[in-house]
Amino acid sequence: MGDCSLETAVKTDDRYRLALKLLQEDADKIHRLIAVQLDNLTIPSCPLYEEVLDTQMFGLSREIDFAVRAGLITREDGREILSDLERKLAYLYTLTESK
Amino acid sequence: MGDCSLETAVKTDDRYRLALKLLQEDADKIHRLIAVQLDNLTIPSCPLYEEVLDTQMFGLSREIDFAVRAGLITREDGREILSDLERKLAYLYTLTESK
Repeated sequence: MGDCSLETAVKTDDRYRLALKLLQEDADKIHRLIAVQLDNLTIPSCPLYEEVLDTQMFGLSREIDFAVRAGLITREDGREILSDLERKLAYLYTLTESK
Repeated sequence: MGDCSLETAVKTDDRYRLALKLLQEDADKIHRLIAVQLDNLTIPSCPLYEEVLDTQMFGLSREIDFAVRAGLITREDGREILSDLERKLAYLYTLTESK
């Protein structure tokens, strides 16, 4: 790989890592919201809680979709970030419904 | 500018233009939603219309915020896309409220 394309590859790699880092940080915020809810299952959950989580999931999915279309990450990368969260959410909702 | 940094600059410029193009396309979808509503002011608007517009605006603002944090566009670029839409929305809401 010539010097030039190496530098461009590095630049693209930097952007790839930055994009993934930003998306994972946003995903971690939602993980923390879910964790708080899981830690407080015994107390009546705030009725808006699901609404907040759904809104945050929608926002993150739009960011991921944009990052894929902008060529920053792969569709698979995005799917991984979201499916991890969706599993946790499904788990939370089964627990809250069985209360 | 050496060959290398020129190529990198071009690549970055390509990414900048792609990001702006994607965001403007998403903004144009909302512009079209507003235009449909403006064209049909005489008929009772679907109660969910505002909800749809608000959700789309939230999605777009998250995309723009991500694009700025990922270093693809400037905060000013993003503000321009959104303020154009916010002006149109404000205009639509004044008309629908005065119905």
